[in-house]
Amino acid sequence: MKTETRRVYLDNMATTPVLPEVRYAMLPFLTEAFGNPSCLHEWGDVPRDAMEKARGQVAELIGGNPEEIIFTASGTESNNTAIKGLALAQQKKGKHVIVSAIEHFSVLNSAKTLEKWGFEYTTVPVDKDGTVNPEDVRKAIREDTILVSIMHANGEIGTIEPIKEIAKITKEKGILFHTDAGASAGNIPVDVKELGVDALSLAANMFYGPKGAAALWLKKGTRMMPLLDGGIQEGGRRAGTENVAGIVGMGEAAEIARTEMATRMEQLTQVRDYLIKGLPAKISHVIVTGHPQNRLPGHASFCVEFIEGESMLMLLNAKGVGVTSGSACTSRALQASHVLLAMGLSHEIAQGSLLFGLGITNTKEDVDYVLEVLPPIVERLRQMSPLYSKFLKQGKGA
Amino acid sequence: MKTETRRVYLDNMATTPVLPEVRYAMLPFLTEAFGNPSCLHEWGDVPRDAMEKARGQVAELIGGNPEEIIFTASGTESNNTAIKGLALAQQKKGKHVIVSAIEHFSVLNSAKTLEKWGFEYTTVPVDKDGTVNPEDVRKAIREDTILVSIMHANGEIGTIEPIKEIAKITKEKGILFHTDAGASAGNIPVDVKELGVDALSLAANMFYGPKGAAALWLKKGTRMMPLLDGGIQEGGRRAGTENVAGIVGMGEAAEIARTEMATRMEQLTQVRDYLIKGLPAKISHVIVTGHPQNRLPGHASFCVEFIEGESMLMLLNAKGVGVTSGSACTSRALQASHVLLAMGLSHEIAQGSLLFGLGITNTKEDVDYVLEVLPPIVERLRQMSPLYSKFLKQGKGA
Repeated sequence: MKTETRRVYLDNMATTPVLPEVRYAMLPFLTEAFGNPSCLHEWGDVPRDAMEKARGQVAELIGGNPEEIIFTASGTESNNTAIKGLALAQQKKGKHVIVSAIEHFSVLNSAKTLEKWGFEYTTVPVDKDGTVNPEDVRKAIREDTILVSIMHANGEIGTIEPIKEIAKITKEKGILFHTDAGASAGNIPVDVKELGVDALSLAANMFYGPKGAAALWLKKGTRMMPLLDGGIQEGGRRAGTENVAGIVGMGEAAEIARTEMATRMEQLTQVRDYLIKGLPAKISHVIVTGHPQNRLPGHASFCVEFIEGESMLMLLNAKGVGVTSGSACTSRALQASHVLLAMGLSHEIAQGSLLFGLGITNTKEDVDYVLEVLPPIVERLRQMSPLYSKFLKQGKGA
Repeated sequence: MKTETRRVYLDNMATTPVLPEVRYAMLPFLTEAFGNPSCLHEWGDVPRDAMEKARGQVAELIGGNPEEIIFTASGTESNNTAIKGLALAQQKKGKHVIVSAIEHFSVLNSAKTLEKWGFEYTTVPVDKDGTVNPEDVRKAIREDTILVSIMHANGEIGTIEPIKEIAKITKEKGILFHTDAGASAGNIPVDVKELGVDALSLAANMFYGPKGAAALWLKKGTRMMPLLDGGIQEGGRRAGTENVAGIVGMGEAAEIARTEMATRMEQLTQVRDYLIKGLPAKISHVIVTGHPQNRLPGHASFCVEFIEGESMLMLLNAKGVGVTSGSACTSRALQASHVLLAMGLSHEIAQGSLLFGLGITNTKEDVDYVLEVLPPIVERLRQMSPLYSKFLKQGKGA
């Protein structure tokens, strides 16, 4: 068996492949249906209708109304628009915002920008599984709090947050609540009404749609200052010529995700559990990160002690396995994950982070392959690790 | 001859079709090369390399360096990023910005947003041809002026602005100069060094690339506050997962535009001049708007007196001709163009605006078709026009 030629993509939290059906749906808008949807002549009609169909498809995926969907170019843009746009629109009421310690950098850094603009923000902690305690949100709320942003699920550790419970508190206090559902929407049931939020971000490339297409759902009647000024696209809430092909692809991907969700979740959960059980059985000193049960179906994450995650992923890459050690947006920054640190893990342990984002085509055989090639890699890296030598000596000394 | 079945697209200032070569270049990134360019494993390599190739292609189109290119999702985003990002980064030096009266709404409305943030802005006028007088810019400069934004060419009237001359003044005064080259880049020579600007916006869908891909060129060393916070993409200047397919398409379109520019310009100029001469010869009371010579090669714009442009374009649409009465971004707002009003035209005349954006596949036969179907439309609309009756009565009375 030539194991070295096998290619196993396990980084679906960085981006998913584009489904063939999605690509086919997009192609006409890169061909004859190239028109600008804002145009009043017939070249504008087909793109406009297609965009409105996609708006409906995306709305249906998350239980919202089509007119509440604002198409953007990335989950990051959706998060920036929500945090900055909602805060700026509410600033007469107050200038205090609450986020969690494990938010995506597009939320955390937007909060930092608000700080430069004279706002203040509070970061609520998470427990060892990466879960936010709703009571911590309640405690963080001040007289001048105008916005809470807590993610629905974390892409690095897979933990799903108690959004419904937090929403009860924000509703009681009359504060807007945004959730970044980038990692969850399209992968697990997301219903804006059930969650009780006021704004929700989602991105097509997290559920087999194209990169460059995302959306912000904004509850009807919620005031928001646009991030992009200009024309009257998206009801004046996001100016700029629309990426019609991308939007159409997002709509198609949303519809497929909705209809196939139950099947996908069942399959992914099986493969995930097989990996979560299998890996610590094959490799010593492994910590499973994130919530043991309450996590994304395709998500398995670990910290392998005495090792740097970067080295592991490089050697796994040489074996044809694509995984990551952290969020794609920061993988080139080579810093210990703020998410793992917030969960109380040490810098040393956080360095050994390994994140598997399973996709709908992954099988137990893919996991078997990983479990075959990873242990010798870990062994090899530990032999070179000063931390491991130290640990062994201490162990013998004890 | 069944003239009614002919379809003639003449709205290339709203958006251009996507060239087949561009589409082919994009397809792998919607198929096997779907990876996230930020990923460190091999799935990230091909998209990242392709994106960097595109960065070089776009840089070469405008005479900049690849590392000075920031990819965005629209010309609107590029303009918002430049205006807001440069102003916020310079605010300790001063809080005054200068724009022209005929800028795109993404520039004008960004200036208005700056005003809400405690900045001030001055609008410099244009003459009857829509040209900014550089001396007016000089006069508008104050001690606290930090940024000037004047467009390279106007998409509604085709007029090309004296950017080089204005740049001499801003350089002399040590003020940053941004130009919106959305309508010009890829269509006429644009060289950032020759123009002498500090920042320049361009959009792929204006030169046969895809919608959803655009760029901001920012001179090396120029400080700018990012509009989108988050990951470290685009050198930390624009966070968010990149629309790789769109970016690759933009690069390909830029390279083709650069190599074919001279041929395209020659052909477009011929067809344009044929239309600019032909239309007023066939229809009475027509004003050619914009600069008579110093205009975009594919651009012909008119005001047809005593008529509403919207009605003309609807009836032209029924004859298979796609044109517009103003900028695509505002065509659904149904207001008289701020550009035409700034040139001193009355509201009544501005209502009769008709804008032809010729494309590289348009021929003199397309123009002949327009010159055949348009006069009866104008005739019919004028018969219903109270303004025209009034004019005729006055004429007889005189």
